[in-house]
Amino acid sequence: MAKSPETEHPVKAFGWAARDTSGVLSPFNFSRRETGEEDVRFKVLYCGICHSDLHNIRNDWGMAVYPMVPGHEIVGVVTMVGGNVKKVKVGDKVGVGCMVGSCHSCDNCANDLENYCPKMLLTYKSIYYDGTMTYGGYSDVMVCDQHFIVRWPENLPLDAGVPLLCAGITTYSPLKYFGLDKPGIHLGVVGLGGLGHVAVKFAKAFGAKVTVISTSPNKKKEAIEHLGADSFLVSRDQDQMQAAMGTLDGIIDTVSADHPLLPLIGLLKSHGKLVLVGAPNKPLELPVFPLLMGRKIVAGSIIGGMKETQEMVDFAAKHNIRADVEVIPMDYVNTAMDRLEKADVRYRFVIDVGNTLKAVM
Amino acid sequence: MAKSPETEHPVKAFGWAARDTSGVLSPFNFSRRETGEEDVRFKVLYCGICHSDLHNIRNDWGMAVYPMVPGHEIVGVVTMVGGNVKKVKVGDKVGVGCMVGSCHSCDNCANDLENYCPKMLLTYKSIYYDGTMTYGGYSDVMVCDQHFIVRWPENLPLDAGVPLLCAGITTYSPLKYFGLDKPGIHLGVVGLGGLGHVAVKFAKAFGAKVTVISTSPNKKKEAIEHLGADSFLVSRDQDQMQAAMGTLDGIIDTVSADHPLLPLIGLLKSHGKLVLVGAPNKPLELPVFPLLMGRKIVAGSIIGGMKETQEMVDFAAKHNIRADVEVIPMDYVNTAMDRLEKADVRYRFVIDVGNTLKAVM
Repeated sequence: MAKSPETEHPVKAFGWAARDTSGVLSPFNFSRRETGEEDVRFKVLYCGICHSDLHNIRNDWGMAVYPMVPGHEIVGVVTMVGGNVKKVKVGDKVGVGCMVGSCHSCDNCANDLENYCPKMLLTYKSIYYDGTMTYGGYSDVMVCDQHFIVRWPENLPLDAGVPLLCAGITTYSPLKYFGLDKPGIHLGVVGLGGLGHVAVKFAKAFGAKVTVISTSPNKKKEAIEHLGADSFLVSRDQDQMQAAMGTLDGIIDTVSADHPLLPLIGLLKSHGKLVLVGAPNKPLELPVFPLLMGRKIVAGSIIGGMKETQEMVDFAAKHNIRADVEVIPMDYVNTAMDRLEKADVRYRFVIDVGNTLKAVM
Repeated sequence: MAKSPETEHPVKAFGWAARDTSGVLSPFNFSRRETGEEDVRFKVLYCGICHSDLHNIRNDWGMAVYPMVPGHEIVGVVTMVGGNVKKVKVGDKVGVGCMVGSCHSCDNCANDLENYCPKMLLTYKSIYYDGTMTYGGYSDVMVCDQHFIVRWPENLPLDAGVPLLCAGITTYSPLKYFGLDKPGIHLGVVGLGGLGHVAVKFAKAFGAKVTVISTSPNKKKEAIEHLGADSFLVSRDQDQMQAAMGTLDGIIDTVSADHPLLPLIGLLKSHGKLVLVGAPNKPLELPVFPLLMGRKIVAGSIIGGMKETQEMVDFAAKHNIRADVEVIPMDYVNTAMDRLEKADVRYRFVIDVGNTLKAVM
């Protein structure tokens, strides 16, 4: 008899799963593997809702497998460690982001870039080495190889810190790699959502001048007064955009919907860098002349390696960087997904898994 | 009375000009300015035919002004120098490429990147500081500010060297800037024309492994046996392309026609760089997911600054790099343009201006 998610492993687990492309989440009994020599088991306390969770449960990008337990911004408290685990001990706070496995032998792994390993395993919807499906953090317990465990900094709040494990590293990593982390840099941030608002905070901490670029004029006050951006451009206002041509050293573009690149390339100085971290599922139009005329770059970047993720949370703790979150109970998750679709959240939902998951059993 | 091209300046000049969007070139009497304090006057000996000359005379990119004397790969012998000219003396061989002016005060000019100066003046079809049109090298005499004069290296042939002033620097500069000039790099070169064949030679001189990517299987023998490429991919051969996925550190893409970027991005390793140096006049389709998944870059680059252009011709002289050229008489130019349109040249036409222009007066 084929084993079910509930019986395939010895450790009982409980979470919320999507069952089909409706994406509706509902309670789900499954199981977690025994804690191996390299493994850390932890009780999940908080889990952020990433916009990609919404795409995944509804199969917007294809390749969904159901039942699917989403969640890749996870923080919790260690309850058991394997014999080879030196990194953390029982009682420590730990985080898990988007990855739970990689090959450890390719060039990317050798360079602490597990996120670009061709055999990287996702925290949910990947097939793990034992042949079973990975399930994410909308659940009571996690078991994870210590390599993919982040040590949680002492003074970083669990709820407001947990979105950094995806939204944070997704913006921090390209700022570093593309040299946009220097004081005096003038950075543009396109889209003021889960990723964008964290990008503003990191950039300010690096000493950059930050301009937020958004379709929504009503985000201006918030961007400047609350998030600390230096200026704000309404992307549909031709005059504003024209006046700002050639002023930015780089742009972090967090938009995952179809949108024109030409005005963004125009905002860049010569040799400027437009870094896409959102993932539109259709190709964008790339105008070539404007790219040539200023030796400009359009690049992509996705999350970051484990070493850099640790560095990022430590940096965030030191500089008091956290996400702006709305903490919700587990059984609010479907409503939260509907609101997320309408961008009706400032800026990240975080599920209080530790206190509210048991209540619905 | 408004002055005509023939009378606006004191120095008689003669060349071939296009008169309208047919692009047909015919003999043209005009004039050059007196040799100013910073100016170098020289007798034109050879002038390369760049593919952009063809686009310009037919107004494919808009903004053409007629009559138009094309030509921005120019070499000649100095006949007069202004009082402040120390760089060269009468009798020296000199070159002029794509530019004849820039502001000398912007960040790009300060960094020897006059090619990205917003006020850069083109060798032809720009309005010079004195209000008159610039005319290119399909002509008997040039007058040029010494800043935009290249000292011709002793052992670089004039005819086979002259295309380097555009085709050479256009490929040399991005190889350097994007770090693709390191021994052991695996570089792709897309398109084996005027730019592509020179890119192969520079890359080999830098110690790279070079793969030529072309739509034409019949260029394979030539690419490998004659130009020294290490391998060859037929871009329409799915199996070949699939087998080469993820193998290239960088690509110099010289194609100016519409073409798919997805397979080229696929050929790159993680963190690889696709550099466009051709200029399609419509936007290309940019797939974002493949860019994100490998932190890849799509960039543009156009010619190079004067300091780097000098460095490039000196490097070419030292490493015996030259273009493969077909030297033609001036009155063959219209036939040459028709053949160029059909890519019927290996790989660059060069007009023997010095010996053949006078013959048609």
